[in-house]
Amino acid sequence: MRKIIVNLNYASYPIYIDFNLLNIKDIFYPLKKNDRVMLVTDTVLSPIWKNIVLGSLVDYGMIVDELIIPDGEKYKNFVSVELLISNLLNKCHDRHTTLIALGGGVIGDLTGFVASIYQRGIRFIQIPTTLLSQVDAAIGGKTGVNHVLGKNMIGSFWQPTSVIINLNFLNTLPKNQFISGLSEVVKYAIAFDYDFFVWLEKNINDILSLNMNTLLYCVTRCCELKKKIIVIDERENNCRMLLNLGHTYGHAIESYFEYSSFLHGESVSIGIVIALYTSEILGLLNIVDIKRIINLLEKIGLPTIIPKEISSRSFLKYMIRDKKNYFGQITLILPTSIGEVKVFNNVSKNIIMDAIQMCY
Amino acid sequence: MRKIIVNLNYASYPIYIDFNLLNIKDIFYPLKKNDRVMLVTDTVLSPIWKNIVLGSLVDYGMIVDELIIPDGEKYKNFVSVELLISNLLNKCHDRHTTLIALGGGVIGDLTGFVASIYQRGIRFIQIPTTLLSQVDAAIGGKTGVNHVLGKNMIGSFWQPTSVIINLNFLNTLPKNQFISGLSEVVKYAIAFDYDFFVWLEKNINDILSLNMNTLLYCVTRCCELKKKIIVIDERENNCRMLLNLGHTYGHAIESYFEYSSFLHGESVSIGIVIALYTSEILGLLNIVDIKRIINLLEKIGLPTIIPKEISSRSFLKYMIRDKKNYFGQITLILPTSIGEVKVFNNVSKNIIMDAIQMCY
Ligand SMILES: NC(=O)c1ccc[n+]([C@@H]2O[C@H](COP(=O)([O-])OP(=O)(O)OC[C@H]3O[C@@H](n4cnc5c(N)ncnc54)[C@H](O)[C@@H]3O)[C@@H](O)[C@H]2O)c1
Ligand SMILES: NC(=O)c1ccc[n+]([C@@H]2O[C@H](COP(=O)([O-])OP(=O)(O)OC[C@H]3O[C@@H](n4cnc5c(N)ncnc54)[C@H](O)[C@@H]3O)[C@@H](O)[C@H]2O)c1
Ligand SMILES: [Zn+2]
Ligand SMILES: [Zn+2]
Repeated sequence: MRKIIVNLNYASYPIYIDFNLLNIKDIFYPLKKNDRVMLVTDTVLSPIWKNIVLGSLVDYGMIVDELIIPDGEKYKNFVSVELLISNLLNKCHDRHTTLIALGGGVIGDLTGFVASIYQRGIRFIQIPTTLLSQVDAAIGGKTGVNHVLGKNMIGSFWQPTSVIINLNFLNTLPKNQFISGLSEVVKYAIAFDYDFFVWLEKNINDILSLNMNTLLYCVTRCCELKKKIIVIDERENNCRMLLNLGHTYGHAIESYFEYSSFLHGESVSIGIVIALYTSEILGLLNIVDIKRIINLLEKIGLPTIIPKEISSRSFLKYMIRDKKNYFGQITLILPTSIGEVKVFNNVSKNIIMDAIQMCY
Repeated sequence: MRKIIVNLNYASYPIYIDFNLLNIKDIFYPLKKNDRVMLVTDTVLSPIWKNIVLGSLVDYGMIVDELIIPDGEKYKNFVSVELLISNLLNKCHDRHTTLIALGGGVIGDLTGFVASIYQRGIRFIQIPTTLLSQVDAAIGGKTGVNHVLGKNMIGSFWQPTSVIINLNFLNTLPKNQFISGLSEVVKYAIAFDYDFFVWLEKNINDILSLNMNTLLYCVTRCCELKKKIIVIDERENNCRMLLNLGHTYGHAIESYFEYSSFLHGESVSIGIVIALYTSEILGLLNIVDIKRIINLLEKIGLPTIIPKEISSRSFLKYMIRDKKNYFGQITLILPTSIGEVKVFNNVSKNIIMDAIQMCY
């Protein structure tokens, strides 16, 4: 078992990573016998993995209630928030209860958000089941739900009590979801760690065939890299922004298609490619490195070109509407080499348009 | 102008107290020209005081939107939360915007809560207009809204950017609201400050006739006392509980009458009296001190006996349902002298019943 401690000023919590974590004694520490918990999961996961977690919780002597939310991003909203809160109140959960999120980023973000506002904040444990949530969403304490007028517009920073990353869960994850998660993995490598990038190039086939030991290293490395950033800048005033490599461009694709045609990681992959070409135009990155990165993304099976439906003009419009680009100024995270990225606030619209046009 | 700095580990913010604060240059610091703000107030305050605040904000060159919520505790709910969030999104407020709460505890709690969850947290300024919110609700960062299944069940800890306590606002506050607020003032004195209690006995007539200089001292002293507690124990794990003197008993009265017959401070006043008698039975407090406190409460015009409608048996039942009394255990804050209170977790139900029976 790998264990990473996330040390924040006011709290610290562990991330556990292994194949079969739910059998381990005290995995739910600091919970103890007779503590109450509310297990939250979705309709897809419920028949597959819920009973394993439930069994483990009951074995520890905990008193478990459960709530199953319909599967899908569109249920990451205020209605689900109210549903979970009403359930907690109806079953008389007080502020000593603990929420347990079993699922991908949707369940994790929703459950974490409710944990942050129920009776002014209660404990919650993340048990991420998608690759994306294991390497990204479950770590770092960003929680939230969507509003009809914008994604993730309502939320908080609320750190989990622990994160239990059970790699076995990935065995039932649909392949396209797994591949989508890999784009965040590649993102970490490009942004922070050349050696990890080289390792990915070498081991990508083992990863794609779900070799558990390879995955253990891969997921652990991503968690370590994200942890390093979070402990310096929990609230994204500063270096946490670097994690958005590919995302400013990617969000434009997601919102253009109203979150229906592309998975998050797929649009991030295209976003990374546009970022690479933006770097090239600015003279920050050479074409050899760019080809090398695109080659890895393609080997994984991730998209690397902009779908023809989006004109370059409307692409730019959607970028400007992104909540991070206030006052119309676009903040870009751009690679300066494989393993390093920087923040750029004043790239001209012409350069951005040129980079976009190189990616059709 | 009095200025109290609330120093927390991760932030510190000022409380300003005076008669005519809105004329003072830089009162909205750190806001600056061209910053966007959303002014939130209620239907009662809007025709009385809104334009003064609005004028002041506009004079500073800020870009102001406003939202007026219907007056009353029943609008401190999720519907108002969504209304405020939709307004912010519709008017494209990004995470650099600031909310300004102009009103009593209802507007302050609601606005603070939205500030804590809009785009994972934005700034907000408290401009409390009731005595209760000036000495209590606006300070300390407790925010929240009610749920049909319980009061203040949804909320967060989110500190304001500043608190602007303009005493002139009290000139239009209904007398019963003013008197209700005074019960929190007496609470501070009993709990923490004998000298302040003596000062209150001497100056109560000037306070009741709204002498501004007397009020300035009174409100400032309360803010200082609350500040001292918050900086030690922001999240009420410990000594912040002492601020609940009179509240465990008081909440039972409020919820028995479904928050309709008594104002908050009125039920707290009765709650304080029951706490006094509980102390007496336990041999912690003598009858001379008790009479002296009751005398002050009566001089103010606060109720000091339990309404006959509530039987002592149902009183106890409502106390046990309070969210702070988990596992049926009742936590009481009891005075040990005028100026000192302590936490008691194991007062027997018989003693509590006896104390209740002494207060009809
Ligand atoms: N909080 C953060 O820092 C952060 C970071 C990135 C993304 N996110 C959020 O995460 C969400 C996306 O998360 P996601 O990609 O995990 O999607 P998801 O939670 O919607 O899960 C994807 C699908 O896979 C199913 N599934 C999950 N685990 C499974 C398993 N082991 N076996 C079979 N099916 C499984 C789910 O039921 C769902 O249908 C978005 O809402 C995004 O905003 C948050
Ligand atoms: N956050 C905290 O720490 C904290 C502490 C105590 C109470 N509270 C909350 O505060 C709320 C009660 O607050 P409140 O007592 O201020 O009540 P309130 O906000 O409902 O105000 C009382 C009434 O007075 C009116 N009013 C306010 N200021 C006025 C003025 N200057 N002139 C004329 N009318 C005015 C209001 O419109 C309202 O009708 C409750 O919801 C309670 O839960 C919060
Ligand atoms: Zn992402
Ligand atoms: Zn009170």
